[in-house]
Amino acid sequence: MNVPDLIPHYRNQRVLVTGGLGFIGSNLARRLVDMGARVTVLDALVPNFGGNQFNLDGYADKLCVVLGDLREPRVVDEVVRGQSFIFNLAGQVSHLDSMRDPFTDLEINCRSQLDLLEACRQYNPGVRIVYASTRQVYGRPRELPVDEDHPLAPIDINGIHKLAAGWYHVLYHDVYGLRSTSLRMTNTYGPRMRVVDSRQTFLGLWIRQVIDGAELLVFGDGQQKRDFNYVDDVVQAMLLTAVSAATEGQAYNLGGLEVITLLDLAKLLVELHRTGSYRLVPFPPERKPIDIGDYAGNYSRLQKAIGWEPSVTLRSGLVRTLDYYRRHRKSYW
Amino acid sequence: MNVPDLIPHYRNQRVLVTGGLGFIGSNLARRLVDMGARVTVLDALVPNFGGNQFNLDGYADKLCVVLGDLREPRVVDEVVRGQSFIFNLAGQVSHLDSMRDPFTDLEINCRSQLDLLEACRQYNPGVRIVYASTRQVYGRPRELPVDEDHPLAPIDINGIHKLAAGWYHVLYHDVYGLRSTSLRMTNTYGPRMRVVDSRQTFLGLWIRQVIDGAELLVFGDGQQKRDFNYVDDVVQAMLLTAVSAATEGQAYNLGGLEVITLLDLAKLLVELHRTGSYRLVPFPPERKPIDIGDYAGNYSRLQKAIGWEPSVTLRSGLVRTLDYYRRHRKSYW
Repeated sequence: MNVPDLIPHYRNQRVLVTGGLGFIGSNLARRLVDMGARVTVLDALVPNFGGNQFNLDGYADKLCVVLGDLREPRVVDEVVRGQSFIFNLAGQVSHLDSMRDPFTDLEINCRSQLDLLEACRQYNPGVRIVYASTRQVYGRPRELPVDEDHPLAPIDINGIHKLAAGWYHVLYHDVYGLRSTSLRMTNTYGPRMRVVDSRQTFLGLWIRQVIDGAELLVFGDGQQKRDFNYVDDVVQAMLLTAVSAATEGQAYNLGGLEVITLLDLAKLLVELHRTGSYRLVPFPPERKPIDIGDYAGNYSRLQKAIGWEPSVTLRSGLVRTLDYYRRHRKSYW
Repeated sequence: MNVPDLIPHYRNQRVLVTGGLGFIGSNLARRLVDMGARVTVLDALVPNFGGNQFNLDGYADKLCVVLGDLREPRVVDEVVRGQSFIFNLAGQVSHLDSMRDPFTDLEINCRSQLDLLEACRQYNPGVRIVYASTRQVYGRPRELPVDEDHPLAPIDINGIHKLAAGWYHVLYHDVYGLRSTSLRMTNTYGPRMRVVDSRQTFLGLWIRQVIDGAELLVFGDGQQKRDFNYVDDVVQAMLLTAVSAATEGQAYNLGGLEVITLLDLAKLLVELHRTGSYRLVPFPPERKPIDIGDYAGNYSRLQKAIGWEPSVTLRSGLVRTLDYYRRHRKSYW
């Protein structure tokens, strides 16, 4: 299945994107609009969560933006009605913030998700839902690449709550027949990600720093392995999943084309930006206990189910990302 | 390690039992008082949750009962101070209720547990905590007996939240050094369990029904396997765990001496009561999707760690249980 095949599935369809002013949500919303979907974006613009009005720049009159909070049951009840698809991306994503304030993380990543599913059960039981979960549910990998049978052992509050919410989605499928799928994402990067700090991803911060001429700080020995998905590949995975009946009630990993150490990633960024510097520094004490070590996702189950695979190399994706932020720094800095 | 060895660990120690008017909590509190501990019981007596003042009959002047709710952060902050041990048993335990009202289950089994751990972190970081988790975290077993490496895949809201809370306890150990252990219990039965309905365990309801001369209803073909722990054995496991440094930060299964089908269990109850009847009936539609099939717990990891094993046979435990309820039916019916 490739891009042209998706258009008939989404053209004129009503689609809700929660967290649609955020990084992945806005990229997805724009793509949906381009395919002719009737898109509603729900976003609370919670400070530090990644929502940014500029992410939908040029699309404001082509979709409906509801500035509402998933924590408000009445808002949720209203927006789920009549949708054919819900891409459920709203969430608190910072691991550190979840440790500093576990209760807010619980409200957003558990209670609000239950609210959304209960609202769907009641007002829109036929809707197709794709939930954005995270590799964080696996905790520290026992071996790479991590497939869906890897033990679940989250090591921070955010990972625990995201796992619970992924299970809600599977449970509401199994018990109530809701057509939901959970995608466990690895590091996603690209245009429209948060670059102010490392809340969404440290790579965002590095992008800003390398453009600003600031030194990139690499924690520890920099030998931690990671894989990355360019945001367009993640959007494609979500769109393909939502039109695949076979994936309903399941959870799948995404994963990158390449695995790279953080030190090599810093070097690559400096190389691609043609200037810059990096330095190894000790792990900050608050980060070390919730660091997962190495990670790479095995996405073969999803590949088999829907034919998805990542297509954008890290080098190519970083070039596009750097280019985007050089042009739009005033909207993100 | 056996009973006499435990006394020096608990004599004159301050011990908090959350849910201490409930089934396991009250048996534990009584045992602790008998060993000379200075026991505080926290219980909200939430209707249908299993709390019963009669459970501490004869002990009211030997311990302190705080009728307070774990959902009230100020109550929690207050009761955790100065305790040497916390046995954390307060919870919503009904699988069906968790599906009917997932939000209350979330409040009690997730938010309140976070509150308790945050309070310990702040006001009593040296306290030893044992958390009562459940076999429900494993969902439908792939093979029996289930050990701790079995995949975690809860199939109801209660299982999801109990798993999250178990992880909180491990996480607060790993990140903040709290000395907590999670015990995943199988079916527990014995004096002081709830027998009004099957919210706590269907076996409670059966005990009442067989004594009342009512017909026991066995769902499906009655071939579902289960294991059972007599409550004294569970109390012993908790007491031994709390004085074992090696178990800190870990999660362990309990498990029964025997595995029995539900049909054979019904027959055994009728035999032991010397009169009664049972009948196979189809699964109620609301129960079937959250039924776990067969279950038996492998407790060898805990046995290796602390020397615990169950000692009360099902036959002997049921005789004691029937005897208790024949004598005290007016307090439980």
